[in-house]
Amino acid sequence: MYEGPVQDLIDELGRLPGVGPKSAQRIAFHLLAADPADIGRLQDALQKVRDGVQFCQICGNVAEEQTCRICKDPRRDATVVCVVEEPKDVVAVEKTREFKGRYHVLGGALDPLSGIGPDKLRIRELLARMGADDIKEIILATDPNTEGEATATYLIRMLRDFPGLTVTRLASGLPMGGDLEFADELTLGRALSGRRTV
Amino acid sequence: MYEGPVQDLIDELGRLPGVGPKSAQRIAFHLLAADPADIGRLQDALQKVRDGVQFCQICGNVAEEQTCRICKDPRRDATVVCVVEEPKDVVAVEKTREFKGRYHVLGGALDPLSGIGPDKLRIRELLARMGADDIKEIILATDPNTEGEATATYLIRMLRDFPGLTVTRLASGLPMGGDLEFADELTLGRALSGRRTV
Repeated sequence: MYEGPVQDLIDELGRLPGVGPKSAQRIAFHLLAADPADIGRLQDALQKVRDGVQFCQICGNVAEEQTCRICKDPRRDATVVCVVEEPKDVVAVEKTREFKGRYHVLGGALDPLSGIGPDKLRIRELLARMGADDIKEIILATDPNTEGEATATYLIRMLRDFPGLTVTRLASGLPMGGDLEFADELTLGRALSGRRTV
Repeated sequence: MYEGPVQDLIDELGRLPGVGPKSAQRIAFHLLAADPADIGRLQDALQKVRDGVQFCQICGNVAEEQTCRICKDPRRDATVVCVVEEPKDVVAVEKTREFKGRYHVLGGALDPLSGIGPDKLRIRELLARMGADDIKEIILATDPNTEGEATATYLIRMLRDFPGLTVTRLASGLPMGGDLEFADELTLGRALSGRRTV
């Protein structure tokens, strides 16, 4: 609709997830009026990601070097490993400040319909860590949805015969600050079956 | 929160208007998994806009060459000029397919509190067009808000003594598909005062 480079930029921005035509237009006109140095920083950041982001050789999280900060940190307990689907799940767990162990990023969840089988996830690497480190507990922190549950079930079956290993799963239940009335049946059911004595 | 280039990209994306931290993260991980050629097209589009976008010498709209397609088109009536604030307003009016004249893009609206006076808008260029072309009608299509109304009032005062010129303003009233009950008082008041015999 616009002529020349402005429309190209709107088109490219509109291809990004969650950016509709109106937002793309708004961002494009913002950049049109922006300081070239600001655009430069965005371009540099894109180039670096395009050049390739490193992933930690141990846990699979995004990293600045071959090993990520968490896996390098001697204060983090190497015997407890929290298994998550994506790097953003590591950030979510870190924000709680409750977890002092290490992570293992699978790189997704089992989804046979999309052709994602166990070989597409970093499960082999997890087993290699089991052999190398003295892991005492594996916390399965995959998403509480169909794919995440299937992945957890698969890992439980694979890990349950390891001697001296405890496998745990994040608790399901009502979200804090939520309202019982608005909880879905599945969540409420889980909250009931997981009830604790106080 | 993330290490290295991923966090830089999230930070830069988060500076764009309408992109919150969650969206920035989502876009960054999308780009991380994207085809390098896709990132390349976005980079190219940014570079072109950074290199500078041309504006039509006549109307001030974004253009591919010195003169935009509309000002070059001999089928467009040069005697009727629709005055708008921004290039996106040209796109909005063009979408109606109702208008066969030409445009004049002011580049904003009067806003003395933000230091935007008449000298910051392309008003001088509009007067130059008045002298050069045989303009018969000027349609004031600035936004129906305080700044847009002030700009329209200013232009009406400046243009009303031009011989043989009609100055018009877009009609205010209820939006189509709207609900009378939910119209604000100002809009409903305008719709009332602008009522037409049927």
